[in-house]
Amino acid sequence: MKILLSNDDGYFAPGIQTVFQSLRENIEFSRLDIMAPERNRSAASNSLTLLEPLRMNLHTNLSDDPRCHVYSVNGTPTDCVHLGMNGGLDYQPDIVLSGINAGANMGDDVLYSGTVAAATEGRFLGKPSIAISLCGDQFFETAANVLLTFLNDLPSLALSKDTIININVPDVPPAELKGIKVTRLGRRHISEPVVKQNDPRGLPIYWIGPAGEAAEAGEGTDFYAVEQGYASITPLKIDLTHYEMMATLQEWERGLAI
Amino acid sequence: MKILLSNDDGYFAPGIQTVFQSLRENIEFSRLDIMAPERNRSAASNSLTLLEPLRMNLHTNLSDDPRCHVYSVNGTPTDCVHLGMNGGLDYQPDIVLSGINAGANMGDDVLYSGTVAAATEGRFLGKPSIAISLCGDQFFETAANVLLTFLNDLPSLALSKDTIININVPDVPPAELKGIKVTRLGRRHISEPVVKQNDPRGLPIYWIGPAGEAAEAGEGTDFYAVEQGYASITPLKIDLTHYEMMATLQEWERGLAI
Amino acid sequence: MKILLSNDDGYFAPGIQTVFQSLRENIEFSRLDIMAPERNRSAASNSLTLLEPLRMNLHTNLSDDPRCHVYSVNGTPTDCVHLGMNGGLDYQPDIVLSGINAGANMGDDVLYSGTVAAATEGRFLGKPSIAISLCGDQFFETAANVLLTFLNDLPSLALSKDTIININVPDVPPAELKGIKVTRLGRRHISEPVVKQNDPRGLPIYWIGPAGEAAEAGEGTDFYAVEQGYASITPLKIDLTHYEMMATLQEWERGLAI
Amino acid sequence: MKILLSNDDGYFAPGIQTVFQSLRENIEFSRLDIMAPERNRSAASNSLTLLEPLRMNLHTNLSDDPRCHVYSVNGTPTDCVHLGMNGGLDYQPDIVLSGINAGANMGDDVLYSGTVAAATEGRFLGKPSIAISLCGDQFFETAANVLLTFLNDLPSLALSKDTIININVPDVPPAELKGIKVTRLGRRHISEPVVKQNDPRGLPIYWIGPAGEAAEAGEGTDFYAVEQGYASITPLKIDLTHYEMMATLQEWERGLAI
Repeated sequence: MKILLSNDDGYFAPGIQTVFQSLRENIEFSRLDIMAPERNRSAASNSLTLLEPLRMNLHTNLSDDPRCHVYSVNGTPTDCVHLGMNGGLDYQPDIVLSGINAGANMGDDVLYSGTVAAATEGRFLGKPSIAISLCGDQFFETAANVLLTFLNDLPSLALSKDTIININVPDVPPAELKGIKVTRLGRRHISEPVVKQNDPRGLPIYWIGPAGEAAEAGEGTDFYAVEQGYASITPLKIDLTHYEMMATLQEWERGLAI
Repeated sequence: MKILLSNDDGYFAPGIQTVFQSLRENIEFSRLDIMAPERNRSAASNSLTLLEPLRMNLHTNLSDDPRCHVYSVNGTPTDCVHLGMNGGLDYQPDIVLSGINAGANMGDDVLYSGTVAAATEGRFLGKPSIAISLCGDQFFETAANVLLTFLNDLPSLALSKDTIININVPDVPPAELKGIKVTRLGRRHISEPVVKQNDPRGLPIYWIGPAGEAAEAGEGTDFYAVEQGYASITPLKIDLTHYEMMATLQEWERGLAI
Repeated sequence: MKILLSNDDGYFAPGIQTVFQSLRENIEFSRLDIMAPERNRSAASNSLTLLEPLRMNLHTNLSDDPRCHVYSVNGTPTDCVHLGMNGGLDYQPDIVLSGINAGANMGDDVLYSGTVAAATEGRFLGKPSIAISLCGDQFFETAANVLLTFLNDLPSLALSKDTIININVPDVPPAELKGIKVTRLGRRHISEPVVKQNDPRGLPIYWIGPAGEAAEAGEGTDFYAVEQGYASITPLKIDLTHYEMMATLQEWERGLAI
Repeated sequence: MKILLSNDDGYFAPGIQTVFQSLRENIEFSRLDIMAPERNRSAASNSLTLLEPLRMNLHTNLSDDPRCHVYSVNGTPTDCVHLGMNGGLDYQPDIVLSGINAGANMGDDVLYSGTVAAATEGRFLGKPSIAISLCGDQFFETAANVLLTFLNDLPSLALSKDTIININVPDVPPAELKGIKVTRLGRRHISEPVVKQNDPRGLPIYWIGPAGEAAEAGEGTDFYAVEQGYASITPLKIDLTHYEMMATLQEWERGLAI
């Protein structure tokens, strides 16, 4: 198996280094390369860098295994995976993994998440790509274990090619994890207001406020599973057309045509 | 009506200035404010700026109408709309408009588009937000006309609150537009390979390549409508859960539970 | 005369637009082009953009005089002047002007100033380059007047080719300016401490604090002249060798050689 | 001794890591902390980040010695040293070292150099700050040795408090270095023209061209010493006033006063 590993916290973050070690020790692979942002690019969503060129920087002091290279890239998570799949690497990966993010990516968060975006960019591979997030920043090994379990069973699962897997793991020691739940995305309320301050020069500045509280977090959602102590696995699909509204609009369209 | 207008090409781009003028002359409003990036942020997707504060810069030389302010923001399109809706403006907008983008946003493009992302950020308003793109950079007035038509009829349309409207208009003179078609998103093939070059210092650089050719562009898609000379209107919805795959995964989950 | 005009506050800032108008109305020129940053790049010093390409964006809505073009550039003040002098324009400017900056650039400030850096980049032209700053942000026309006076007399002054002129003007109405003083740079104390805060997510952030108080601001300095109500004109030179210390070090070098 | 070590190539670059190890093994110190940019900031000059806050990121995996911390900072080299000296560290450093840069910083280069700027920012410490550059990217240990020699003798040298030391070392194995020469800065010709290209979307882009050839590189200059195989040590001073031109301008000023 040839694996491309990315994230949005940067190539040197504890989460990606934990999963990199875990994979090297526990699974069979012919290539396992990190291609990740040179710095924290949280909330990068699916943004692509079109106006500037990308550069790949190989860090030989982070791996001396010829099957495992660590590259930092001066771009977004999506840039990293795009570059890796479209010519930056000398092979085509079989799977894209993204994470382990330090912090949850649930409900409406996935729209903004760079972690999920990196996995999404792998959707043309013909095999599920996987984003994995820890709902905190302590027990990355718990998340790494969940990923190993899922990767082990993945070949036996008949998932469609356009599936993206989003995993969120409670920040508890491995022994305290209650299990795994398959979930749908919950929803959040609108965000908290922006935080207005003055900078030290007296000029007004605005910080994006915290995400909204969960608006739909009942049983079956990712929010609920994690709240109950389970790892949440949500299958995602990129199909943004609002089919239900097409009929309403088509009626309007027919009116226009007259 | 109170309108928040944004885009991803920057507050000073011809497309947004065209629609700003068109709206001022043709519709009734009590507020119509531009809050848009200070520079080109194409392909920004839904990225949010969390690690740095935002600043709003009022450009009094671009409007002296007290109902119309032009602000540039040192952030992404999503930041602009988020800021406008969550405390940056002294009122809550009724609708968010984004555009007119110089260039199409169809099929898989919408995932990466900053123009569509700005509209998406307005989805909590309880009224459809609208992204509008010109498939070129010449006849912005054609796109402005389509927007006026749609805005005029919008109150009579029973669209659900979670609808986002994505409009793409062929780059032809107004008289040559064939009409309007309601469409679903088409799909693209994987992108062209990255373009590898050396910079003047001899170091390798990589440019994200052109988007892939249309893979699904048959009748009913946005690609097809524009190709035939029609403006395309696609209703969008943010619901990324892959419901079909949940059953497959739940079976696996039950196996785990044993 | 062919003039290249830049600044560090951005191509659309009131200061540069004021001097642009003033020059167009009051002096003879065959070319007068703005090439300035697309956004605020204060404190950019002499930084150059080497890892990314520059882009020039022509703003036809800011001038329709074929002798006067307004370009924004996605780079630093130094990038702008470098680009203008080394191939970006279709002619070689005779003089580089930078400003009018909103805020003083005196004493140790000049080391960090993007305004002064833009002028410095013109030092190979064989004619003095000029940086001009207003010690405030109200009366830009006062600064514009001082510049006109100096430009008018410049041909009669036997200034050496490596001279850079740094002008600072009190923020008073034109009639209240007391006159012009030739000065040397004063000096500042070390800066105020960084301002430590927590961002809304509770993470520590640090803001560069205010510049230090004037440590050497006696008669003859730029600080003193402005304090007394005069415009300050300081000739600058880029020669950073510390000749006095060479002897001390050469003695040490001879000891090494033994 | 308490040492603050910075650079402009980034906290993880081979040059700074080489000198970090060399200092830890060879000199006595109570504190030796790296505070360096999170990514390559070459040609940053003395630029300061005023509009955004700085963040310090401690990398515990790069040192477990309680006297030695490695921080990356989301800013310029000048930001790093400013932050370290003005509140970011819990002590006041005795000396600032910057490097080892991968590439020479000689003649006019020092004006643009982030490496030299980091040392310059230490000029208020009351003790010389030192910038060190390797004229290549192979033999960093040669440069580290020169630095050790200089640091060893520094206490016995009667250098004035405003001295900044700029060291450039030929990229040769330690045994091939011919010695050390005290030098003055040479000068370069104006740069090569910008390199104009089209990006893959057909839009024009411009790259800053190579630095100009040496215009003044005779005996006694830094260019000459390195060319002859010697390490070059140039004392620098920040005093930009052009005293020779003050008389010329004062005569003009007297004419104005009449």
